[in-house]
Amino acid sequence: MGMIGGGQGAFIGAVHRMAAALDGKIELVCGAFSSNPEKSKASGEEFFLDPSRVYPDFNTMIETEAKLPADVRMDFVSIVTPNHVHYPPAMKAIEHGFHVVCDKPLCFDLEESYKLRDAVKASGLIFGLTHNYTGYPMVKEAKDMIQKGKLGKIRKVVVEYSQGWLSSFLESTDQKQAAWRTDPKRSGIAGAMGDIGTHAENLAEYITGSRIVAMCADISTVVKGRLLDDDGNVLIRLDNGARGILFASQIAAGEENNLRIKIYGELAGLEWSQMYPNDLEVKWADKPKQILRTGVGPLSEAAQAHTRIPAGHPEGYIEAFANIYRNVAECISARDEGREVEEIYTDYPSIDDGVRGMEFIYKVIESGQSDAKWVDL
Amino acid sequence: MGMIGGGQGAFIGAVHRMAAALDGKIELVCGAFSSNPEKSKASGEEFFLDPSRVYPDFNTMIETEAKLPADVRMDFVSIVTPNHVHYPPAMKAIEHGFHVVCDKPLCFDLEESYKLRDAVKASGLIFGLTHNYTGYPMVKEAKDMIQKGKLGKIRKVVVEYSQGWLSSFLESTDQKQAAWRTDPKRSGIAGAMGDIGTHAENLAEYITGSRIVAMCADISTVVKGRLLDDDGNVLIRLDNGARGILFASQIAAGEENNLRIKIYGELAGLEWSQMYPNDLEVKWADKPKQILRTGVGPLSEAAQAHTRIPAGHPEGYIEAFANIYRNVAECISARDEGREVEEIYTDYPSIDDGVRGMEFIYKVIESGQSDAKWVDL
Amino acid sequence: MGMIGGGQGAFIGAVHRMAAALDGKIELVCGAFSSNPEKSKASGEEFFLDPSRVYPDFNTMIETEAKLPADVRMDFVSIVTPNHVHYPPAMKAIEHGFHVVCDKPLCFDLEESYKLRDAVKASGLIFGLTHNYTGYPMVKEAKDMIQKGKLGKIRKVVVEYSQGWLSSFLESTDQKQAAWRTDPKRSGIAGAMGDIGTHAENLAEYITGSRIVAMCADISTVVKGRLLDDDGNVLIRLDNGARGILFASQIAAGEENNLRIKIYGELAGLEWSQMYPNDLEVKWADKPKQILRTGVGPLSEAAQAHTRIPAGHPEGYIEAFANIYRNVAECISARDEGREVEEIYTDYPSIDDGVRGMEFIYKVIESGQSDAKWVDL
Amino acid sequence: MGMIGGGQGAFIGAVHRMAAALDGKIELVCGAFSSNPEKSKASGEEFFLDPSRVYPDFNTMIETEAKLPADVRMDFVSIVTPNHVHYPPAMKAIEHGFHVVCDKPLCFDLEESYKLRDAVKASGLIFGLTHNYTGYPMVKEAKDMIQKGKLGKIRKVVVEYSQGWLSSFLESTDQKQAAWRTDPKRSGIAGAMGDIGTHAENLAEYITGSRIVAMCADISTVVKGRLLDDDGNVLIRLDNGARGILFASQIAAGEENNLRIKIYGELAGLEWSQMYPNDLEVKWADKPKQILRTGVGPLSEAAQAHTRIPAGHPEGYIEAFANIYRNVAECISARDEGREVEEIYTDYPSIDDGVRGMEFIYKVIESGQSDAKWVDL
Repeated sequence: MGMIGGGQGAFIGAVHRMAAALDGKIELVCGAFSSNPEKSKASGEEFFLDPSRVYPDFNTMIETEAKLPADVRMDFVSIVTPNHVHYPPAMKAIEHGFHVVCDKPLCFDLEESYKLRDAVKASGLIFGLTHNYTGYPMVKEAKDMIQKGKLGKIRKVVVEYSQGWLSSFLESTDQKQAAWRTDPKRSGIAGAMGDIGTHAENLAEYITGSRIVAMCADISTVVKGRLLDDDGNVLIRLDNGARGILFASQIAAGEENNLRIKIYGELAGLEWSQMYPNDLEVKWADKPKQILRTGVGPLSEAAQAHTRIPAGHPEGYIEAFANIYRNVAECISARDEGREVEEIYTDYPSIDDGVRGMEFIYKVIESGQSDAKWVDL
Repeated sequence: MGMIGGGQGAFIGAVHRMAAALDGKIELVCGAFSSNPEKSKASGEEFFLDPSRVYPDFNTMIETEAKLPADVRMDFVSIVTPNHVHYPPAMKAIEHGFHVVCDKPLCFDLEESYKLRDAVKASGLIFGLTHNYTGYPMVKEAKDMIQKGKLGKIRKVVVEYSQGWLSSFLESTDQKQAAWRTDPKRSGIAGAMGDIGTHAENLAEYITGSRIVAMCADISTVVKGRLLDDDGNVLIRLDNGARGILFASQIAAGEENNLRIKIYGELAGLEWSQMYPNDLEVKWADKPKQILRTGVGPLSEAAQAHTRIPAGHPEGYIEAFANIYRNVAECISARDEGREVEEIYTDYPSIDDGVRGMEFIYKVIESGQSDAKWVDL
Repeated sequence: MGMIGGGQGAFIGAVHRMAAALDGKIELVCGAFSSNPEKSKASGEEFFLDPSRVYPDFNTMIETEAKLPADVRMDFVSIVTPNHVHYPPAMKAIEHGFHVVCDKPLCFDLEESYKLRDAVKASGLIFGLTHNYTGYPMVKEAKDMIQKGKLGKIRKVVVEYSQGWLSSFLESTDQKQAAWRTDPKRSGIAGAMGDIGTHAENLAEYITGSRIVAMCADISTVVKGRLLDDDGNVLIRLDNGARGILFASQIAAGEENNLRIKIYGELAGLEWSQMYPNDLEVKWADKPKQILRTGVGPLSEAAQAHTRIPAGHPEGYIEAFANIYRNVAECISARDEGREVEEIYTDYPSIDDGVRGMEFIYKVIESGQSDAKWVDL
Repeated sequence: MGMIGGGQGAFIGAVHRMAAALDGKIELVCGAFSSNPEKSKASGEEFFLDPSRVYPDFNTMIETEAKLPADVRMDFVSIVTPNHVHYPPAMKAIEHGFHVVCDKPLCFDLEESYKLRDAVKASGLIFGLTHNYTGYPMVKEAKDMIQKGKLGKIRKVVVEYSQGWLSSFLESTDQKQAAWRTDPKRSGIAGAMGDIGTHAENLAEYITGSRIVAMCADISTVVKGRLLDDDGNVLIRLDNGARGILFASQIAAGEENNLRIKIYGELAGLEWSQMYPNDLEVKWADKPKQILRTGVGPLSEAAQAHTRIPAGHPEGYIEAFANIYRNVAECISARDEGREVEEIYTDYPSIDDGVRGMEFIYKVIESGQSDAKWVDL
């Protein structure tokens, strides 16, 4: 694996490295860790890389690596830069025959997304997007239960992603995360809706297996001086007839990373919360509620295949993130070795999920600005 | 106290009687417990009443009691009938000089509400509405914290009331509660929104001290054959600039009486859930979160005045309900005795709250039917 | 009902009155509320009693009431005084043919307990002891599950009652509760073990249907100057071969009334906590854990018969307490009316449970002072 | 790092590898993964190791590696075998100048422990024991709070480690974990007390900074046919005068890995549970309780230094385990590079903790067999 972005001081780069390293199947072999070549170099040293494979920029990296012998060069690139630097390296990597893992949202704008999708499809290469929350075992279990009809027809979905870290005008300080995430030149047209609203959208569609087809949004910029939205409340309708709510906030003071979903079918309701990810609450209409737990009792194959340790030893964010990497790596290996991959490992967010997320962003922002009650997605 | 409705087999009548009896300050002295005189009589026997004061109908009761000596006749009537039988006995009672406690929503329709309000105001009599959830000590505490500015300016409110008991077409059975609550001739224009949506509206406005000024609603009847709404999701805007969400459902399978509110200010977020009412979560933006508990540590006067037993001995629904009765009774006593009542006891839902709830019902249903994005309230 | 003790300022007297009043079946008709006749009189006024039935002392009360016509005089006495004033009024009441409800522990010392038991048995009168925690519906459910063998053979029990209110030398202030509960002249030979350890013992034996047969105790007086134990940790062995732990503390800083029990059988474990009494956790060895909830789904007859309101409306301490009163009252009524009482209503703590609790107190204190590892109970 | 044990199918070996890999600072370079050379070889392949460094047994490994150039040979060995194979490879490694990370309990018996300790001390090498639960950030925070006196003098400790996985006679199946952990020839003199009781002991002493000085134990073998204890309840006394309880069970049906500790001081109580490790409950005697959360608000340096990701993204078992590895690796690096190591990184369980744990095992088993009430530790 070669990494683009994620040098010293970055938050998500370290997460990607830990997630990739966890299972001992992926080795970081090269990187262009910063737009500043000095910083890139220093980061490479910290990561024990061969200095000759620490590159000053991603173009050099991709071009140089492409020329290395097949058994030496990186297998795929991991792109962990701010949104406006997703498309250029991704396209470059695809053009040079490298598989890609990319952070979300897919691109800076919708147009880039479509172009990237076309390129990926044409190339036949593997493209994984780190909508990491779908990597949790209990999220897999929830999806499996719904797919198997255990809840009956789905009627209602309530999904939220609430954070409080941008309750004040943090971007006026030198906080790096706040700076780029609230900057339209680096984040794109959306703030909270792009950064975390897409996680909520992805999670809801992933678990239910249904798609949002209409939205009615109330989008706000609560903190004075901020350039992008930091709070949004959205009525949603799904293609199976279910209705619901999606809301995301970065000004929900005191919330950490409260991604939470409630889904109601004819027979039962499900509730899952990212901050306590090993619990899946099943509220039956006519019998006692259950708490399904990672690793406990008879669970779906999917949940089991994404669990590493025995029940009661909590698995967390990095493990879920690692499930995305593990599956992508397994698909790449299988492809390289010309063998079939088990279906369970093909379950990772794809280029299509990425385009879907970008469309969501555009439509939810459009709805927020519109006087029409409903905007189709 | 004389009771109208609430005979054998009724749910809420028993709650009112327990709530009224709890503090030993209110005695049930007469009643017209059913539209069926035989049933009324049987209920009166069960409640150990003097048979001469068990009446065949509310008109007879009010007229007869009014003629009794002042120290014998009932002090107030408690109306615990279905919605369409709120207005007639309430008006009758007011006309005969009796104070009233009435179940919510206030009336069958909006017009009745206005007429009742005018009559109450003109009479100078005391009118209490049992929006009982505001009786919980931790709800009082939440209100007090916001009033004192501890959360800073309020920015966002998310309030829900989710039930699952009407997930199936229960009104086709002989379940009495389901029958009248889904019947437009007895409930009025709204189902879930009238029965429990009003509780959510009342709770949010009570705690924040702000009013909903605009709504955008998606109102559904999910269960086939049902005549009234059983699910609704609503974007809301408050008069202080805050935005948020209100949702209510009777088809959220597996939910019991999940009334829950989250309020975010500049400095902290609050979360309270009716099913675990002695916990009030305070999530500070910059320090560890706290769990305030009924009876623990320094709490507001209001919370203390509505707490009966030492910390760690859970108080529940009946106790909260009893707080409404206790306050109304105290106000009546004070008025009868010509003394000032302590301000803390004047805190119970009033005729104005009742009208407000009716306006909410009408506007939320209107919004649900409208293509306009926002409907003003 | 006539009350002895529980005048203005008392804690448990008010609880008894609320519990007795809740169901509208028991009326407070007389009382001797304080050893100070003036206070007794003032309390009686506050409770709206006929002044002629507010007595200066319990002897006068019992003797006077006994002479009243059968349909006027009190049906039973409720004794809510400190421990050293349990035996005298209880014996007096029994001697005059009155049924008794008495607070726990049964008596000041073991000798009194045996004498009282003999008198009660000889009289054939009804005697209820307010080990109120067994009144919770989910405690009934737990007992029922074990009785029906759902957990298999019981192997382990861990029961605790932790409070923190005596973490400091509170009895040096004028706190009335602290004063008598730490005073050997009023409490008896035990502090924490008598006041709350007995609750733990009673709860464990009630739910499991087994009896503690041996104990190994480490009993402490942690706070300097205190005259009775305020903390105790006890290894226990049960007559069915199960082993376990019982601990109680009044110096567990920050704990409110944390009475909690965990019971493990061959097939599953149960966990119940008094502070969240409507949840009963069932941890199955081989399937997902369940949260049984008051009023939800198919529960035992016993749980249902002790539940007043629909699921999700929390029932608390007073309701559980009221279940004891309701059952005692039902047994008294049935007896007076010469009819059979349904078995479910005969489930309240009896004189035998009271003697058992006293024996527990004596043996646990003995074990605490002994060098022998095990003391038989 | 070279690994001894932990080949395919082992549970804890995989955990050690993930923990070691997580931070990208430790590379697995060689191993003797099984006592079966074929299995060892197959495991090495799976881990992408150079076949020449996959050894048939640990003696060969240590001897061969010792002869490799300093910059090539492994830096330390990680011993993840059953208890009876801790001492031989550990001694061998020490004798050949390798640092050691070893799973707990330290050795098969006490004598080995003392010999190993002497060897480690004489060598000056680094020895880390994976009492991994002390690696959690909130455990560090708890220790820090007590050290700084925030709870006042510690008065009571209740620590438990409850599992249910050995509720049935699992060792009669081919379950590998059950087989060796219940086998006195591989586990040593204790079952539950050795496997998990030591974790409880270590955690309690780590957090409180105090030592258990006396124990009174009731130790059982509940499941018929089992050769070692599977349940134990122990009264404990600490050197600071505090008293408490330690219990551990493998027959607590339905429990996963319920390691939980409650500590009470004069001013507050703490509660922490391994299954929800990012919450630390602080129950103040005189103010609202707090929930400290990993990464939220002002925490101790120690907690911060052992946290990898922003608040609300749960860190779990592997991350805590990795903290032990990270600290050991940092100490090794510092030593190799001749620089001072920051004090915070010296915080990992040592050879002394290992000996302490062995002494605990011997004394708790002795107490279980003794008629004396107290056995000194």
